[in-house]
Amino acid sequence: MDFADRLHQRIRDVGSRVCLGIDPRPDASPLTHPERHEHDRRRVADAVVDAYEAILRRAHGRLACCKPQSAFFEALGPEGMGALARVMAVARELELPIILDAKRGDIASTAEAYARAYLTDGPLAADALTVNPYLGIEALEPFIEAAEAGGRGLFVLVRTSNPGSGDLQDLHVEGGPTLHEALADRLTARAANLRAGDGGYTALGAVVGATHPEALAGLRRRLPGSVLLVPGIGAQGARPEAVAPAFDRHGLGAVVNASRSLFDREATSLERLADRASEAAGRLRDRINLALSARA
Amino acid sequence: MDFADRLHQRIRDVGSRVCLGIDPRPDASPLTHPERHEHDRRRVADAVVDAYEAILRRAHGRLACCKPQSAFFEALGPEGMGALARVMAVARELELPIILDAKRGDIASTAEAYARAYLTDGPLAADALTVNPYLGIEALEPFIEAAEAGGRGLFVLVRTSNPGSGDLQDLHVEGGPTLHEALADRLTARAANLRAGDGGYTALGAVVGATHPEALAGLRRRLPGSVLLVPGIGAQGARPEAVAPAFDRHGLGAVVNASRSLFDREATSLERLADRASEAAGRLRDRINLALSARA
Repeated sequence: MDFADRLHQRIRDVGSRVCLGIDPRPDASPLTHPERHEHDRRRVADAVVDAYEAILRRAHGRLACCKPQSAFFEALGPEGMGALARVMAVARELELPIILDAKRGDIASTAEAYARAYLTDGPLAADALTVNPYLGIEALEPFIEAAEAGGRGLFVLVRTSNPGSGDLQDLHVEGGPTLHEALADRLTARAANLRAGDGGYTALGAVVGATHPEALAGLRRRLPGSVLLVPGIGAQGARPEAVAPAFDRHGLGAVVNASRSLFDREATSLERLADRASEAAGRLRDRINLALSARA
Repeated sequence: MDFADRLHQRIRDVGSRVCLGIDPRPDASPLTHPERHEHDRRRVADAVVDAYEAILRRAHGRLACCKPQSAFFEALGPEGMGALARVMAVARELELPIILDAKRGDIASTAEAYARAYLTDGPLAADALTVNPYLGIEALEPFIEAAEAGGRGLFVLVRTSNPGSGDLQDLHVEGGPTLHEALADRLTARAANLRAGDGGYTALGAVVGATHPEALAGLRRRLPGSVLLVPGIGAQGARPEAVAPAFDRHGLGAVVNASRSLFDREATSLERLADRASEAAGRLRDRINLALSARA
């Protein structure tokens, strides 16, 4: 089954549209970054794996998927990539879809190597990968090919959630639309030649930040075949209710990422950390579902 | 000494503007990817380190710098990142500046983690890093801050060398210029507040493909404070003579990357591989220098 169908199946099975962001920030918790070991990358990497293994095992029934942020693992050096592989192995064992947030992008012959790293079988293989479109659709082709071949997915950065995202993305281009709208139209044109599953969704998803609620509905329409990955709620400022327009009329076609808001910095034990993450995921699941049913 | 000044000092010392691209492609050579070990990532990683160590030790006197392409190491999984660290350690020992080609970019709190991974001390620390601007200048700030703090450099993707690069980069934006020109103007505005070394060069460099020779001269003018990293000659089709407009009137302000064209796929020993890479680097060095002196 292709990624979009698998993700939708899971959303229906667990009743949750929440994506758990796995962002092991160095300032998040002494449980993941024990101060006395701050210069020992292997010890920190082990602590990160233990913490997120506990969270995933407790919370997975309340999650649609998880999204490890590669940057925080890369910051731990080669041992960090080993830790990423171990966290991903736990998610795989729990049958929790993995969106690897690595925002890769390069010229096509190099993009092939990234696709090989993250979209084929291997220790870092994900169900889906975030990719950066600045090099053009042609440079995305190796990712698209690998995703289609393996039933995996892509999330192309379209409108990001950061305060300065409009700097390039909101520039108006010839013909009137903004750059991110022009990109969305190109992605939809490309998706017309891709395999579509239930509801018409293809492997070509998009990242659309919840911090631009006015843009969500428009991008939902411009990207009818794209599952949307929606970051930006919680620590970045958007309210969970603001994400409703990202979903189609069946309440599908999107997942909502939360990282810092599900992570209890004050927890003093892994059990407590896992409990609090699970509770917070459940509350977020319910708020999103309520917002969708209020809309219907 | 800051990165631009160090790079220029080296260009003067060795008389070379050649950047050796370290791209361990799986189809490049049985020396780096022994067929009988194709599924043994550790053996392949070891072979890659051996091959590039031999090349770097033989060729470094003919090189301005080297540019490992992270994708090909990531494709080998966590062991690949260990191999990248080992290749980088060899370059550091030889005092050859390292531009890590990873094209990273993310929202600012995540960009900090990438900057920590690649622009501070650690096993993967580089002298400079390539970064992707799609998330806007604000998202580049953690990279800029880390680069300035450590005397390191950045190369922002402006005009890439791939055939489809114009898809977004050549769109005309409000006010007339193309997206890549508008970006160049923003980078130059930002560079006005950065520390400048000899010739006015700051930490904020740019990637400009040699495959668009007509754009090189214009971008050289739009980016007066940016060292240019110029890929695209050799396998990608541009002639070495085409890169002359990337340099300032002193023959500085740019380095020219070559990867596949310096790598002899037919070499049957590491010694032969290293000899051929060194010879090819010397020939490319001379062609670029001749083109610059013909221009003067």
